[in-house]
Amino acid sequence: MIIILSSSATKENLKHVTQMLEERGYGVHLSEGVETTIVGAVGVPSDPSGKAEVMEQFQALPFVDKVVSVSKPYKVVSKQFHPDPTIIDVRGIKIGDPAFVVVMAGPCTVETEAQLMEAARAVKAAGAHILRGGAYKPSTSPYSFHGHGEPALKMLAAAREELDMPIITEVLDVRDVDLVCRYADILQIGTRNMANFPLLTEIGKTQVPVMLKRGMSATIEEWLQAAEYIASQGNKNVMLCERGIRTFETYTRNTFDINAIAAVKELSHLPIIADPSHATGKASLVNAVSRAAVAAGADGIIIEVHPNPEKALKDGAQSLLPEAFVKLMHDVAPIAAAVGRHI
Amino acid sequence: MIIILSSSATKENLKHVTQMLEERGYGVHLSEGVETTIVGAVGVPSDPSGKAEVMEQFQALPFVDKVVSVSKPYKVVSKQFHPDPTIIDVRGIKIGDPAFVVVMAGPCTVETEAQLMEAARAVKAAGAHILRGGAYKPSTSPYSFHGHGEPALKMLAAAREELDMPIITEVLDVRDVDLVCRYADILQIGTRNMANFPLLTEIGKTQVPVMLKRGMSATIEEWLQAAEYIASQGNKNVMLCERGIRTFETYTRNTFDINAIAAVKELSHLPIIADPSHATGKASLVNAVSRAAVAAGADGIIIEVHPNPEKALKDGAQSLLPEAFVKLMHDVAPIAAAVGRHI
Amino acid sequence: MIIILSSSATKENLKHVTQMLEERGYGVHLSEGVETTIVGAVGVPSDPSGKAEVMEQFQALPFVDKVVSVSKPYKVVSKQFHPDPTIIDVRGIKIGDPAFVVVMAGPCTVETEAQLMEAARAVKAAGAHILRGGAYKPSTSPYSFHGHGEPALKMLAAAREELDMPIITEVLDVRDVDLVCRYADILQIGTRNMANFPLLTEIGKTQVPVMLKRGMSATIEEWLQAAEYIASQGNKNVMLCERGIRTFETYTRNTFDINAIAAVKELSHLPIIADPSHATGKASLVNAVSRAAVAAGADGIIIEVHPNPEKALKDGAQSLLPEAFVKLMHDVAPIAAAVGRHI
Amino acid sequence: MIIILSSSATKENLKHVTQMLEERGYGVHLSEGVETTIVGAVGVPSDPSGKAEVMEQFQALPFVDKVVSVSKPYKVVSKQFHPDPTIIDVRGIKIGDPAFVVVMAGPCTVETEAQLMEAARAVKAAGAHILRGGAYKPSTSPYSFHGHGEPALKMLAAAREELDMPIITEVLDVRDVDLVCRYADILQIGTRNMANFPLLTEIGKTQVPVMLKRGMSATIEEWLQAAEYIASQGNKNVMLCERGIRTFETYTRNTFDINAIAAVKELSHLPIIADPSHATGKASLVNAVSRAAVAAGADGIIIEVHPNPEKALKDGAQSLLPEAFVKLMHDVAPIAAAVGRHI
Repeated sequence: MIIILSSSATKENLKHVTQMLEERGYGVHLSEGVETTIVGAVGVPSDPSGKAEVMEQFQALPFVDKVVSVSKPYKVVSKQFHPDPTIIDVRGIKIGDPAFVVVMAGPCTVETEAQLMEAARAVKAAGAHILRGGAYKPSTSPYSFHGHGEPALKMLAAAREELDMPIITEVLDVRDVDLVCRYADILQIGTRNMANFPLLTEIGKTQVPVMLKRGMSATIEEWLQAAEYIASQGNKNVMLCERGIRTFETYTRNTFDINAIAAVKELSHLPIIADPSHATGKASLVNAVSRAAVAAGADGIIIEVHPNPEKALKDGAQSLLPEAFVKLMHDVAPIAAAVGRHI
Repeated sequence: MIIILSSSATKENLKHVTQMLEERGYGVHLSEGVETTIVGAVGVPSDPSGKAEVMEQFQALPFVDKVVSVSKPYKVVSKQFHPDPTIIDVRGIKIGDPAFVVVMAGPCTVETEAQLMEAARAVKAAGAHILRGGAYKPSTSPYSFHGHGEPALKMLAAAREELDMPIITEVLDVRDVDLVCRYADILQIGTRNMANFPLLTEIGKTQVPVMLKRGMSATIEEWLQAAEYIASQGNKNVMLCERGIRTFETYTRNTFDINAIAAVKELSHLPIIADPSHATGKASLVNAVSRAAVAAGADGIIIEVHPNPEKALKDGAQSLLPEAFVKLMHDVAPIAAAVGRHI
Repeated sequence: MIIILSSSATKENLKHVTQMLEERGYGVHLSEGVETTIVGAVGVPSDPSGKAEVMEQFQALPFVDKVVSVSKPYKVVSKQFHPDPTIIDVRGIKIGDPAFVVVMAGPCTVETEAQLMEAARAVKAAGAHILRGGAYKPSTSPYSFHGHGEPALKMLAAAREELDMPIITEVLDVRDVDLVCRYADILQIGTRNMANFPLLTEIGKTQVPVMLKRGMSATIEEWLQAAEYIASQGNKNVMLCERGIRTFETYTRNTFDINAIAAVKELSHLPIIADPSHATGKASLVNAVSRAAVAAGADGIIIEVHPNPEKALKDGAQSLLPEAFVKLMHDVAPIAAAVGRHI
Repeated sequence: MIIILSSSATKENLKHVTQMLEERGYGVHLSEGVETTIVGAVGVPSDPSGKAEVMEQFQALPFVDKVVSVSKPYKVVSKQFHPDPTIIDVRGIKIGDPAFVVVMAGPCTVETEAQLMEAARAVKAAGAHILRGGAYKPSTSPYSFHGHGEPALKMLAAAREELDMPIITEVLDVRDVDLVCRYADILQIGTRNMANFPLLTEIGKTQVPVMLKRGMSATIEEWLQAAEYIASQGNKNVMLCERGIRTFETYTRNTFDINAIAAVKELSHLPIIADPSHATGKASLVNAVSRAAVAAGADGIIIEVHPNPEKALKDGAQSLLPEAFVKLMHDVAPIAAAVGRHI
């Protein structure tokens, strides 16, 4: 941690800062410049515990201009701590394997058994590895459809039986974690819950693989700290999911942050999945963004497919028809090959 | 709802759209222009239930260019539905009263009884009406302080006894709603939980007044829909809190959206409170932004005050010293008077 | 400048950094921590010249994690360099005077002599000090109206004669600077031209007062550097204008950054003007945001007023009718008084 | 254009709107709903001239809730108007050819002849088609390096002679257009000048190919309107360049909007180039984002390469070493092949 004093700081102020540092167990290293004094806090323990508070305390001093962190605010999920990529085995599917790109697909929401099975058979036939489908759906409007709950989970489990595909489904209420864990192969944490710390903590106590979506206005650093919540509780089976961030652009629903795919790979050992459906909000753009994500190094993609988008209860505008998903699989395969991976 | 067809849409496509509308109970009104056809869906019931899905279904059609909503996606909280301002009575303090500006103040987090009481006595003496203090704190880092929980609630209750000040405190875990309701006069929903729909729904089932902070990247419309979650469950005692939104600016922690104060007043009847502490993240800016918020018509302000910010466990950089809070009260009072209100 | 090495940096890397610093005339100050080494560059000259390049050069080294600037990237416009507020005298009107709030008003664009004079007489009668009106207008669409050019400048000059009001008008083409300077009392630089460096430089060579609007996605620091372009050329008569920034919110045209009013006051000695018309894009919100800006400490406001907004060639939606402007003046006056100023 | 009246609009208000439409030559089509009345303006001429003004005039009416545009605000650059892709021939290199991906590379800024030639030879040897290099550089700080001007243009021309590579270079002052046109094969318009309308207009009067960078906070629609400025003057040789947009993320310099690559392809016939160097600001991310851009369908990439980034006068942190550029060419080629193109 580095503390930059304001140019008007006095000797007294400097003494105050060094005393505060010493009280908190830090060594002190001074650089007195022409315009200001810089105080380095040496001997920072590698455990990030308590770091944020201490930084804010120094920031609270009126004669401090800036406080700069030197170390990263996460540890368990950082590449520095664990250089090899994490590979999560989900019923034999190895997510994060450098030679493999996983494809998850299915409807946004489980509506009926017929709808789910039609979508599931179609995505399986096209080569998808994992079936997605929502039993609990967050909705901006209180009057929208919120999912069928446990009956939908049962339909997903039945689809898994029939098609031998693992299933991923969202949990959004901390009270449902146990229930959803009984059905899901992968838990999904949605963008609105990336900073739902009680939910992260509960899921951290299980060993069920979890896909953590980025908050729509979360920085990469905050996202990795959210992953740290889960991993620091003991559940290391965390994969990240870039699903687009909120910007001023209105032609698309979100802006897919392709930089983040590569950035996460240099900061963390966790697998990273791309969600082009939510990131664009437009079926016509999903194929191109899927190709891009795999080219950038994503470990997988998750795609909304609906047999009849114009009757979908959620996200029709971004859902692919089964035939468009077949084309997507066809178009993504050579991209995966170009980066040395197979689907 | 208006559906704008793409310029290449055929007669068949148009027929498809009108049939879909008729199946969903809408009347149809066509405007065939030179370049495209516009389909008006007439007879939309004023109940917004199901609207979002239907809009998405039309958006899913490849020959539809745009779907435009005509009515607002919220009702109970809208000014159109309820033109008079909502006034929430909290132990005799009338929040939302056009002649009154409420001041809530206190430490970010309850740390010790001594710290809480010192802050509470100071803000009471300076004229604050309601005591704030966190017992449960959301933190970006899993290693940060998360609040003392129920013991802190007890300290707040004791402060209320001694000082005859109602208390506001955050609830962030849906499992804690009952517990926090036993202590709090006003529940606070934090920015990270604005779209925590299970939490909104549970709180909607109580009658405890609630202050709903805007999500840091939520539009005003989404924020009002979050309020609608609570109000549509039966709890009409909702006040809104603008606490700054996330933008590209880095000098301040957030950007206080002053437009939103006036915008909420024209869209909704709910009281609106301003949080200059979080909206700026800098103690030096809190006074000016408090004045601005009251000038723009805010029904109240909520201010972080700490007897010793450099020892605060949270948010030291934005906490005022008691003497700075005295000055703030002194500076805000004439602004309130200038807009015909008293503190 | 502080250079934080990555945790994997070697002794060789460190030597490389210190040599680079010495070659560039910096003293070197090392803090070797447990996890990384921090290199302080001491003896930085207070002239910011060349600083940005040097920082980027260190950032280019693969074993450097972060480069942190200690000093501000502007000097002439900084409060540190010049603590007293700049007061710009425009035909006797003292912009930036701590006891005074200037009001500039008039139509977005000069359309006809009749329209201009009707607006000008109305705003003069209501108490405005300076007349605004565009002769050259930037438009997103090439097919929109771009202003009448010199004939409009002549109409503005005639209005000045008749009403004894100084005039402010925009210059957007560097080739027009001389021409516009012959008419204008204050030059306006629009949001799209905040980073038009040739234009800033040319205007810096004059002594004509200039109002520099913030770029719609410019940070406060970039905005002050743009002002530094002008001031460092010799023209110190610079005032800043906050006109809203671009965010994800769509209800308003822009988001007025009220924090910036107070932030500019702590960073710079230049006067700061607020433009609630562009910052909201909605006539119904202009009064509230004008009050807020003055309460926060703005040195003035600039307001679009049109005798007949529904016939305006630009910005009708945000223009006030003359009677609404009268009410605004009436409502802002007591706010100015509350902060110890008069209008 | 569709005009949605507010729910409180009267018969008189409606009459006012229809009269205004008729005065402006529009046919009128009414849909009277339960809650509000929708007025369709029929017979809109396909020429977008004057559209924006008219929309704003209706928006100015207090009893109008919303005005929705039906047609796009650009025409010459739209795919609807010209479905086949534009192919721009630059000394035999066919930019926009569906079978080809162009690679532009070179230093950010021309510093010395030695530096330029070393970079130029390296990128030529690695397979780049076009040499980039700045003679005029926009800089946030007035104290930074601004380019060598005409001498740098001469060095670029000499490099073209020696290496038989066309050159692209930025023009940022409208007064330099003639001069730069005498040297450049492609003019570059930088992000800060996307809305410099005099510059766009002057360049529109030439026939020199031009690469128009997206403004850092411009929507795709605004960017296409900027291209329309150039094309509507007669210069149809316009290519677009996505260089990242400004968001809240701070780990990267900008956020590369990969959605925009695909979106531009569905809205316009113009070629689209990707600039991963500026879009990331980090050399370590350039390879991945280049692969992504080509996978998404970009017609080319433009890459900063410097023989010695730690001595670069601009943008060292994002410049590739020659050997890293060789690797990039090697990695991008199979991606191009996977989408049916060659480099």
